[in-house]
Amino acid sequence: MDPLDVISNLDKVIPYFQPIYGADTQNCIGIEVVGRMNLETLHSLEFFFANDLVPDDYLLEVDNHILIQALDEVLRTKFDGGIFINRHPSALLSDDPENLLTILQSYEEKGIKLSKVVIILQHQLFYGFEKELKNLITYYQTYGIKFAINSVNDKLINLEKLRHLSPDIIKIDFKMVQQLHTASFQDLLNSVIYVARKIGASMYYDGIIDSIQLRNAWKNGGRFYQGAYLCKPQASITKANYECEPLKNDIVKFIRGEKSKLIALRDMTNLIQLRVESAINKYKLGEDINSFLLSISSELNSFCFRMYICDEDGFQQSANLFKLYGEQWELQHQYKGRNWSWRPYFLETVLKMQSNDQGQLSDMYRDIETGEKIRTFSYPMSNGNYLYIDLSYDFLFKHNELLF
Amino acid sequence: MDPLDVISNLDKVIPYFQPIYGADTQNCIGIEVVGRMNLETLHSLEFFFANDLVPDDYLLEVDNHILIQALDEVLRTKFDGGIFINRHPSALLSDDPENLLTILQSYEEKGIKLSKVVIILQHQLFYGFEKELKNLITYYQTYGIKFAINSVNDKLINLEKLRHLSPDIIKIDFKMVQQLHTASFQDLLNSVIYVARKIGASMYYDGIIDSIQLRNAWKNGGRFYQGAYLCKPQASITKANYECEPLKNDIVKFIRGEKSKLIALRDMTNLIQLRVESAINKYKLGEDINSFLLSISSELNSFCFRMYICDEDGFQQSANLFKLYGEQWELQHQYKGRNWSWRPYFLETVLKMQSNDQGQLSDMYRDIETGEKIRTFSYPMSNGNYLYIDLSYDFLFKHNELLF
Repeated sequence: MDPLDVISNLDKVIPYFQPIYGADTQNCIGIEVVGRMNLETLHSLEFFFANDLVPDDYLLEVDNHILIQALDEVLRTKFDGGIFINRHPSALLSDDPENLLTILQSYEEKGIKLSKVVIILQHQLFYGFEKELKNLITYYQTYGIKFAINSVNDKLINLEKLRHLSPDIIKIDFKMVQQLHTASFQDLLNSVIYVARKIGASMYYDGIIDSIQLRNAWKNGGRFYQGAYLCKPQASITKANYECEPLKNDIVKFIRGEKSKLIALRDMTNLIQLRVESAINKYKLGEDINSFLLSISSELNSFCFRMYICDEDGFQQSANLFKLYGEQWELQHQYKGRNWSWRPYFLETVLKMQSNDQGQLSDMYRDIETGEKIRTFSYPMSNGNYLYIDLSYDFLFKHNELLF
Repeated sequence: MDPLDVISNLDKVIPYFQPIYGADTQNCIGIEVVGRMNLETLHSLEFFFANDLVPDDYLLEVDNHILIQALDEVLRTKFDGGIFINRHPSALLSDDPENLLTILQSYEEKGIKLSKVVIILQHQLFYGFEKELKNLITYYQTYGIKFAINSVNDKLINLEKLRHLSPDIIKIDFKMVQQLHTASFQDLLNSVIYVARKIGASMYYDGIIDSIQLRNAWKNGGRFYQGAYLCKPQASITKANYECEPLKNDIVKFIRGEKSKLIALRDMTNLIQLRVESAINKYKLGEDINSFLLSISSELNSFCFRMYICDEDGFQQSANLFKLYGEQWELQHQYKGRNWSWRPYFLETVLKMQSNDQGQLSDMYRDIETGEKIRTFSYPMSNGNYLYIDLSYDFLFKHNELLF
């Protein structure tokens, strides 16, 4: 279809409404307004809005046409949730900001609070115009209008721009994220979630088509969920489900699953701690700290490949005891005297060990020397000594609970 | 000066050597080779390499000219550390990869191991050519050659590309990072450090001019340090300091400072815990959970603005007790029954409270409703109830130790 068909059939362009569910209430907390063209069949308008040859005034005309019908429907149905509107950034930038405000304020008088309005912007549509848009966003925000930015797809994540724009909501579309399951994308997503937490933005996942994607959304800090799995777009707000049974049931299942994973991880940590304690008690730490490591290595051989002892400032007191070629233990004396306080979480972990007198298991990370995925178990010994035990990937791999 | 001046004065182009110090050994662990042109005065060659009109074969010629002299100096001085070489990505991409290998291997025979060589690439010089470069990097890495990518400056951080290229080292240049002190940049840097940890890359900070920058480098996971504060570039490797007293002294100071911050934070957490425990013991949690919150609010009024109670699955058992306009406490009943398990760290924190029966203080984050910077203190009560207390920014601001 040609973009001009949209303009010449503007009377056939109508809003559809897709419910957005809240993770906390587990009910519909808002609707996203999406444009459809009702010819013989129903057409999405993505081809129109994604086409950068369409002039700004056409974009604006269609955006406003959909908006006004949607606001009428909100009034008619007395819908009380959030109203998530898509605006084309070019339309927004080319128009006098007062025009959109005038429309919204005319409905405010009829009862639609501006604080209920969320404007969704696609980052790929305003790439390079972040600065201009930032000013506009700030201006609208002074009226209580909120902004969601759909900035994350499989090609583009720019945290600096995201942070600068400081949206109220960060939207992630599962349709655009094919590889959410890869470790690489998960790491990047964690960075986005971290930034969201720091700027006070809520995570909003769209395009959820099954329970697995819903779990990914829930596990990745999702506060808002949307997609065919929960409820498809509807011609009228009244047809949208307010309650969502699959969501309620799934979340209970997710909680149960996550808790049992965390409990398994805790139990495994305790088990490692018992093994370490029994080894330490068998061979008391005497004057020769390296011999002590060699002694306990026979007890801990099955799960680690490197051991060393540091003081509370991170200065290494022993050599490294390293399992060469996965077989023979070897002392590496050059490591004695090195300092590890610069490593992320090092001093925090020492303090935790001091506070609760228990061993600590790190997250999974890649060893800077071997390049292997490992976890480190650290344990407070007597006289301000701390034992560090690097668990091998072989061992982690054999125990699923250690892999997440 | 004109780039052509470099080519016509190639005999005046010489390598300078700037030591790189290791955070663990606190000694020189390598040298960066930097190009200089020795006319009447000494000139940096940055204008030459940053000029994208310079043809690739000129870049290559100058790169190789510097490299060969540098390797001769390494041989002559029997330097045993890492050799960090800058290569222009265009030169690298335009040349047959065997040519560089042939040069390096000819020196390998004379005793310079390939595993000592680190090639530094500036990301802004190969923006858009990541894919081609990735293949080249992988190829060289099979020979044991390492790669450092200088990908982070104040304009550009692309974590996905960084992760895809998977360098051995991520270099951050303080000269290019003017706003390292801003909270915004710090959040982004944390994301880079997080990715580095996950891919097993070491953080390398360059351009350190004073003790404050050194502290930033140390605090941000820096394994390698370089800059005029530690040692300026030298005409000969023998003139570079192997030991670096300021570094040794500073790191001991940094450790002391960081520990006292962490201890102050722990002490404050304990103090909050004591206050909470004493309030809880004064007014036992009975049937009316909201009245209980109202009762304890009088005791905890000075440091919090929101309180609520959840079960171990994150379902809220009470209303929210919220301090309106920073003055009067108000029950917000609509929050009862909501679920918070989807929030980052929520279930982990519950498990921690269960394991050690102690309160937990969160990191600082922005509240999604008020937009304020807050921390949350959570405390395990009887019968599977968990009390959540949101600490106000006013309170955090009055206690420095809570602000970092």
